[in-house]
Amino acid sequence: MKTNKTIYDRASKVLTGGVSRNTIFREPHPYYVAKAKGSYVTDVEGVERIDFANNMASLIHGHSHPDIIDAVTKQMKNGTAFTMGTEAEVRFAELLSERSGNFEKIRFVNSGTEAVMTMIKTSRVFTKKSKVAKAEGAYHGTYDYAEVSQTSNPSNWGNIDSPNSNQVVEGTPQGVLDDVVVFPYNDIERTLHILDQHANDIACVLIDPVPHRVGLFPATEKFIKAVYNWTRLNNSLLIFDEVVTYRVNYAGAQENYIIKPDLTALGKMIGGGFPIGALAGRADIMEVLSPRGKLLRHPHSGTFSANPISTTAGRVAMELFNKEAVLKLNELTDIAIHQIEEAIKIVDVPISITGAGSMFRLHLLDYKPITYREAYHTPEKKAIINELLDYLFLRENIIMINTGACMLATSLTQNDIDRLSEALLNGFKIIKHKFDKVLVQ
Amino acid sequence: MKTNKTIYDRASKVLTGGVSRNTIFREPHPYYVAKAKGSYVTDVEGVERIDFANNMASLIHGHSHPDIIDAVTKQMKNGTAFTMGTEAEVRFAELLSERSGNFEKIRFVNSGTEAVMTMIKTSRVFTKKSKVAKAEGAYHGTYDYAEVSQTSNPSNWGNIDSPNSNQVVEGTPQGVLDDVVVFPYNDIERTLHILDQHANDIACVLIDPVPHRVGLFPATEKFIKAVYNWTRLNNSLLIFDEVVTYRVNYAGAQENYIIKPDLTALGKMIGGGFPIGALAGRADIMEVLSPRGKLLRHPHSGTFSANPISTTAGRVAMELFNKEAVLKLNELTDIAIHQIEEAIKIVDVPISITGAGSMFRLHLLDYKPITYREAYHTPEKKAIINELLDYLFLRENIIMINTGACMLATSLTQNDIDRLSEALLNGFKIIKHKFDKVLVQ
Repeated sequence: MKTNKTIYDRASKVLTGGVSRNTIFREPHPYYVAKAKGSYVTDVEGVERIDFANNMASLIHGHSHPDIIDAVTKQMKNGTAFTMGTEAEVRFAELLSERSGNFEKIRFVNSGTEAVMTMIKTSRVFTKKSKVAKAEGAYHGTYDYAEVSQTSNPSNWGNIDSPNSNQVVEGTPQGVLDDVVVFPYNDIERTLHILDQHANDIACVLIDPVPHRVGLFPATEKFIKAVYNWTRLNNSLLIFDEVVTYRVNYAGAQENYIIKPDLTALGKMIGGGFPIGALAGRADIMEVLSPRGKLLRHPHSGTFSANPISTTAGRVAMELFNKEAVLKLNELTDIAIHQIEEAIKIVDVPISITGAGSMFRLHLLDYKPITYREAYHTPEKKAIINELLDYLFLRENIIMINTGACMLATSLTQNDIDRLSEALLNGFKIIKHKFDKVLVQ
Repeated sequence: MKTNKTIYDRASKVLTGGVSRNTIFREPHPYYVAKAKGSYVTDVEGVERIDFANNMASLIHGHSHPDIIDAVTKQMKNGTAFTMGTEAEVRFAELLSERSGNFEKIRFVNSGTEAVMTMIKTSRVFTKKSKVAKAEGAYHGTYDYAEVSQTSNPSNWGNIDSPNSNQVVEGTPQGVLDDVVVFPYNDIERTLHILDQHANDIACVLIDPVPHRVGLFPATEKFIKAVYNWTRLNNSLLIFDEVVTYRVNYAGAQENYIIKPDLTALGKMIGGGFPIGALAGRADIMEVLSPRGKLLRHPHSGTFSANPISTTAGRVAMELFNKEAVLKLNELTDIAIHQIEEAIKIVDVPISITGAGSMFRLHLLDYKPITYREAYHTPEKKAIINELLDYLFLRENIIMINTGACMLATSLTQNDIDRLSEALLNGFKIIKHKFDKVLVQ
């Protein structure tokens, strides 16, 4: 019989570290899926688990939704990719444009990483400037300019008044570090002061409105407004990374703000379970990508970009995730948070919960963090989180994201939420004694 | 009834320039696919064309191959993406590793662009250097460091002894241009001299062994050997972009050389029609990506990387593209080239053909070019090529790539090749009178 261990042993011979994505790595070995339906994932050894990770927030309807399978099956028989267009890309672009009033023009790519990269490059063309400003700790994919300081830690993050521009990958060119300006998320005064130091050079300020790795708490209305105003005064763009957060409302997390970003990157759930990314926003800015002009200011293609499989799956997924479905899922998430907060009280552990829409994250703190540095996991805290997540995965058959976060899907039911909160209650009891040794305040 | 024009009118309202990939753009409007099977593509107006472009070389078996559809349909019912592993990625990695002796370790990503980007970043980590050396005119996707000087032209390419490092996208940071060293392809003496100027700083020399945009002629054995030897003496890596050229032999274009690259980027056809990319190569270098160590030297993930749909479709496509199929397709391509060369003689036009394996490209020259600058299309030449391609597409129902290239698929038959050479013969007659006005020598 194939076991998770035997597949990993084979994987270790041909994949570095035995995996092709660090996300799925786990000691002593990753687990391998045999089948998945809705919110239930069964591994190759027959163990069924409830999925609260949904491939890092990319499956808004859980696994194998019949409507998506049907639509993709139909399209697949007519081809998956062409050196010509398809109506599928047009229909999906129309849907996204209707959904969000400020997505005047759209371009599809293959991943969130490509979406953020293309959005940054587009900002540079439009503003004729080179620098990118981003929040310390925020994850925006693996493009060098987007990943700077994503993993900053106490040994290298520097003074909060001017956080260091740190490489994530060894050997990142100095030119990249020099061209990325790092600010503390939601800290208006410091951020504006930092931006002012580079006022002539900043092409765009890149913001995830509910940044998972920073701590999964929303940007404040005041912060967004202050940054927006700064960009208006300094010929710069405000660009949002909504690859994860587009799920928060019908028109994305940006629906919560009076001010709208100039450009938005999308990905994950808008692919309906298939690889996709997109950038969308002001027509006058997106125009730099147009192939119509004599001068190509930003030549851009992509073999699989806008392919009819991803755009069909994505359209069906987004049609299903209508206003009612968004509200219902957000309500279910509120119930989950409430139940878990009850469990926290019962066990009396110093844990707090942040989140927005259908996402939440646990913190080993007796208050809700509002900065990256507060939410940062020391190695001691990371060890406790890992113990909790291992317990949940191995003993309670619950899949969560490795930061201690859940990204819900419409396939989840109240029963699943009850299982989650029960499992966490049990887990909290197990890790409770560890808290004496770590700082939680 | 929906027409190509009416769909484009809708597209123009929501997509910049009406397209999501510049590749498919064509005046006065692009064409939209209704269905495709094997080598036949039918647009929304019912016009059927023979496909010699195969989505820019990504469909090695043409459209909708039944074995691929069956395998994907089966996988899709069990899910398309997970926060866990699948055996699909392991099986596919095993197959690629068996196929090419020097693919010791593999990592999957979502596109050729991501593959080249990750390969360059991996080279920097391993060598602790920053600069990338690449050939003038070579296309390697849209990562800034990979695309420099891809579109260099007589007004900006500078002296051949030291080609300029030119931006492709406006606003490319100066730091990027400074960190990319550009050399003339296949020119050993000049290339070694240029590399020597940056001997301490070059992390990798990036080579496409049959670069389409340079002119679609193979790197010489001597050139590869000279560059390889230079990298051994200077603590640098030789990395190949085989995203397009992996089709040339069973084990890629690199099978033609005694020397093997340290790392190779793959994409296009290895996805079986679905989005994919991969990097593969020496285990000691790939090790920098491992999540096992305490220190993450190159943290790397990707939501859709190694998803079971792309890896399943890719595995089936590569199983079908066995040694016999590769040889058969290459033979068919040789026949096509021979027939087209006959047509060139009959019409007596100054056109030549270059290529390798199952790919070839037409040049408006009375000799076979051996450099990018020889193969470069002046605006006058580009106008003639466009007229030829429009004639083929609109009058002969033949789809070629916009450079005047064909990338064949196993679904093509001798009848299709006969149609291609007849159509080109007719097309050559139509454009013949234009040659008086342009330089073809």
